[in-house]
Amino acid sequence: MKTKVGIIGGAGYTAGELLRLLIHHPHVEIGFVHSTSNAGNPITDIHEGLIGDTDLVFTGRYDLHPVDALFLCSAHGDSRKFIESNDIPGSLKIIDLAMDYRHKATAGGFVYGLPELNKPAIQKAGRIANPGCFATAIQLALLPMADKNALKHEIHVHAITGSTGAGVKPAATSHFSWRNNNISVYKAFEHQHLQEICESLNQAASKINFIPVRGDFARGIFASVYTECDWSLEEATQVYSNFYKDAAFTFLTDKNVALKQVVNTNKCVLHLEKHGNKLLILSVIDNLLKGASGQAVQNFNLMFGWDEKAGLNLKSSAF
Amino acid sequence: MKTKVGIIGGAGYTAGELLRLLIHHPHVEIGFVHSTSNAGNPITDIHEGLIGDTDLVFTGRYDLHPVDALFLCSAHGDSRKFIESNDIPGSLKIIDLAMDYRHKATAGGFVYGLPELNKPAIQKAGRIANPGCFATAIQLALLPMADKNALKHEIHVHAITGSTGAGVKPAATSHFSWRNNNISVYKAFEHQHLQEICESLNQAASKINFIPVRGDFARGIFASVYTECDWSLEEATQVYSNFYKDAAFTFLTDKNVALKQVVNTNKCVLHLEKHGNKLLILSVIDNLLKGASGQAVQNFNLMFGWDEKAGLNLKSSAF
Amino acid sequence: MKTKVGIIGGAGYTAGELLRLLIHHPHVEIGFVHSTSNAGNPITDIHEGLIGDTDLVFTGRYDLHPVDALFLCSAHGDSRKFIESNDIPGSLKIIDLAMDYRHKATAGGFVYGLPELNKPAIQKAGRIANPGCFATAIQLALLPMADKNALKHEIHVHAITGSTGAGVKPAATSHFSWRNNNISVYKAFEHQHLQEICESLNQAASKINFIPVRGDFARGIFASVYTECDWSLEEATQVYSNFYKDAAFTFLTDKNVALKQVVNTNKCVLHLEKHGNKLLILSVIDNLLKGASGQAVQNFNLMFGWDEKAGLNLKSSAF
Amino acid sequence: MKTKVGIIGGAGYTAGELLRLLIHHPHVEIGFVHSTSNAGNPITDIHEGLIGDTDLVFTGRYDLHPVDALFLCSAHGDSRKFIESNDIPGSLKIIDLAMDYRHKATAGGFVYGLPELNKPAIQKAGRIANPGCFATAIQLALLPMADKNALKHEIHVHAITGSTGAGVKPAATSHFSWRNNNISVYKAFEHQHLQEICESLNQAASKINFIPVRGDFARGIFASVYTECDWSLEEATQVYSNFYKDAAFTFLTDKNVALKQVVNTNKCVLHLEKHGNKLLILSVIDNLLKGASGQAVQNFNLMFGWDEKAGLNLKSSAF
Repeated sequence: MKTKVGIIGGAGYTAGELLRLLIHHPHVEIGFVHSTSNAGNPITDIHEGLIGDTDLVFTGRYDLHPVDALFLCSAHGDSRKFIESNDIPGSLKIIDLAMDYRHKATAGGFVYGLPELNKPAIQKAGRIANPGCFATAIQLALLPMADKNALKHEIHVHAITGSTGAGVKPAATSHFSWRNNNISVYKAFEHQHLQEICESLNQAASKINFIPVRGDFARGIFASVYTECDWSLEEATQVYSNFYKDAAFTFLTDKNVALKQVVNTNKCVLHLEKHGNKLLILSVIDNLLKGASGQAVQNFNLMFGWDEKAGLNLKSSAF
Repeated sequence: MKTKVGIIGGAGYTAGELLRLLIHHPHVEIGFVHSTSNAGNPITDIHEGLIGDTDLVFTGRYDLHPVDALFLCSAHGDSRKFIESNDIPGSLKIIDLAMDYRHKATAGGFVYGLPELNKPAIQKAGRIANPGCFATAIQLALLPMADKNALKHEIHVHAITGSTGAGVKPAATSHFSWRNNNISVYKAFEHQHLQEICESLNQAASKINFIPVRGDFARGIFASVYTECDWSLEEATQVYSNFYKDAAFTFLTDKNVALKQVVNTNKCVLHLEKHGNKLLILSVIDNLLKGASGQAVQNFNLMFGWDEKAGLNLKSSAF
Repeated sequence: MKTKVGIIGGAGYTAGELLRLLIHHPHVEIGFVHSTSNAGNPITDIHEGLIGDTDLVFTGRYDLHPVDALFLCSAHGDSRKFIESNDIPGSLKIIDLAMDYRHKATAGGFVYGLPELNKPAIQKAGRIANPGCFATAIQLALLPMADKNALKHEIHVHAITGSTGAGVKPAATSHFSWRNNNISVYKAFEHQHLQEICESLNQAASKINFIPVRGDFARGIFASVYTECDWSLEEATQVYSNFYKDAAFTFLTDKNVALKQVVNTNKCVLHLEKHGNKLLILSVIDNLLKGASGQAVQNFNLMFGWDEKAGLNLKSSAF
Repeated sequence: MKTKVGIIGGAGYTAGELLRLLIHHPHVEIGFVHSTSNAGNPITDIHEGLIGDTDLVFTGRYDLHPVDALFLCSAHGDSRKFIESNDIPGSLKIIDLAMDYRHKATAGGFVYGLPELNKPAIQKAGRIANPGCFATAIQLALLPMADKNALKHEIHVHAITGSTGAGVKPAATSHFSWRNNNISVYKAFEHQHLQEICESLNQAASKINFIPVRGDFARGIFASVYTECDWSLEEATQVYSNFYKDAAFTFLTDKNVALKQVVNTNKCVLHLEKHGNKLLILSVIDNLLKGASGQAVQNFNLMFGWDEKAGLNLKSSAF
């Protein structure tokens, strides 16, 4: 028995990554992959790495009734338009990978899909707002402190992202000649993910100093987070270990971390250090997996009662 | 029912990649991972990307009797020493990832483990010599021609490899400051894989002009191969399609290929072009997977009667 | 006393590199830098690395009379349009970096600007067709053999180029997410530089097998060239050393070469190896310098009687 | 008339970069390049990018009397040993690129060689302690505030460095297979450059939160620095512009900065933003130039009365 899924916005990076996951998911049957601009073409024309794995073809039309789950992989803003302009069957479960329904004031019944925060609600949800990539890495670094009301001081976040975070559309800052071996900062203190982070952590945005950095690699987010904290390293380790003891993909290590430890996996790996009165939390994820499509599949598994790890026991690329 | 395996030389790159595969293999139980220098330490101390996946610890001693299969991941030369100095149980099946038993004159009963060439023999074999990475990419580019006795002229091969091909031991040519954005040639016309290639293709070494190139990336081999050929593109396509019609991981595409299409997969993707009297064959593999540990698992599956793809339905990293 | 120069097509990569050279050239005064789309803006808005070096502003209009030399840095095809639609002062010396006047049949009086081949003609020329980047690396590898009528057999060329060779305009193949750690082949056997190569070497195009490769770095070309040759290595070394004994920027080394040895310099470094009856020639250049703007300045120096190396004693980046 | 210089520790990265500069310096004659391990070999055997530029040979012996200036490029700790164990001529001016004499308590008469801070003292100095690379980028970001006694709150620094900062000696963290596309943090809050930073800025070390990051590129440092500041952006811009109005290589830009703008130059480029009560200062340098050998030459120019920019009008690599 499989769950039948449809994908809207099938030609982008998150849809590609989702397809690379779903192709091998033991409990999924892909009903359709919609893309207006690629209708009629094999999905392997667009999505690298699927040659030999699938004969799927993009469709320009879709019928929502035969599918059980729908993944929205369109550009930010288009998900809300899609929801509002389509006749959505009541039984259809939806996972939105855009940012359209992440904020409480405009969530419209969507549950914020961070399993480490909201697992019971996700399991019962009909509609999920999948978290942002930076937001995932940063929240997972801070949730155990928030849970203990220990976030009393300013929080300092510096997070470096791979180029896939900026999507498939070419831009000056994603041109290889420019980005290769280059580093730059953008939207300092004002990144759009701040709001979902603050809502989850119950913090004022002004308390979080967030410097997003464009890295010269394609996949992954490396976040350095620190704040004043009264706990000893042992106490902090105890709190974090306990908070994540049942997490399927979030792990604490007492060794230093490096980004590639999680690339091509759905994991978040955390490492703690105490320096003076500061607790330093290093948090690494793959922006396309735990930061997007992998977490979407994790939410899907929870919503449909499958093993939370189904389809997500991925071989790390490591190199 | 699982097959119990042991690994000798557990700290190197091929052992790491093998472990990343076997950890999720549905029919494998890992009996031991041997490493003299790391005995007693968790394998996650050495092998990135396994945090949260396993509690395995390197062992400094081993007992070959309880395991069904043994993977030899030591340095070239050490496999033969191991075989000659240990009392090997008769029922133990062995897969050697070094080059010690690849050449016919010194194979000592080892079967050359290229499934596209030797599947029936592999299925019955007790001992397998796993092919070299360059050798795999180049043979898969030329086997269909060799099979039709169509290799009548000189063959021109230019193949670019990732740094992981050179192993974990530091060298001037694997120093990041040197290799980043750098290109160089080594062992032109004289690479040690030429012999196994020539034996499989039944060609004199002097007919193959092989320029190995050090690339500025970590994973993968991109081989450009051309030779004179009487066939039209349509005829060549027919021959190649037919030759690989039952191959589990080798695919022909009529679109241009790029290295990352196969990175983090066990696939080989081939693309043909005809220019004047030359047939150009582009061949891409992941050197650590189809070029080493993935092919070792493929051979393992064949030897033990498991599905040839078991544990090898890998998500391409694509980026 | 300085030479006054103008630049047409001032916003592209070759114009940027030319400006980075001319800013520090001891005998140059920059008269104007023309760019329709950037008229009125500082050139530092577009060309990285010039902050603090210049206050130059792009101009949307130009007067050719006050300048002594004109560099055409427009897209291929636009140089001929420019020449045909402007009233060019008779005394104005022109260096065209596009491919519009490189072929003998349509050169219209332009001299092919490869100093190692044509120095006396360049010194007397009023108009120069600056060679292509691949063409420069490959010709410099083969000119000494051509000079001795020693090119009697097929020639095999495999050359890997940096992304800047493809220009500033974004394309799928210059998107960082795609190109990072990726390798691909394009225009195999049919690259547009073949014609100028064949004309310089007096060879039929069918004798040159040329595989151009897209590399995952920004700057440089690494060319591997081989052909049958009767000479011993000593004889070949003698011929090459002698041919380039007066060359300002082309050097022979008996050590293996690597691309970064020439990055950010105007040099070509050659290395010879003899294997059986094949002579292997490795040739490395920086595609934006010896392959474009550096060679343009070298030609400029020759045309105006300045020291051939003026403004071109560049610090190699090395890393 | 030229200044004759000697180099101790000639085989490392900073010596290589120094040689690439001095070879083209208009007022320098190189007396000797000392390296015990490479004595008798051409320096081009070790230092890439110098082929065709020099016939210099490493020497295993040296005579300090004929040279006017000495650059110490040995490992940290070896400079002090050298000074203490050699008979140094009184007239010999010394520039130490190690960290041995940077701290006031143990400076032993060495002047801290940051021209933006100490130009008059450098001009009169006989011995210079050349600043650290991180220290240079961070001090240049903060000196104008320190000068106005405006550093009243905690300072937050996140700085990403290229691999050349770790030197030529291979390490696990400089292995290409590991570092390519990887990010990691080291010595958080405890980097050895903190002390020289704090001394220049007159700050307690506990006020500076410094996260050093290993980047996946070879050259450059990108530092993000912020602290509370009462000034408006206009006021801050005025202070910084004024402070650096006579600086030879430090520039302020009102555009966003990127690392490659300064790679292969001796520049520091600064960019200011104001967000709430925080002043963000982005500071980029080339770690081998303004962060090491370029600044050493700048100090040399000042000490000997040459133009501060002599030999340092470098072409940016930009790509």
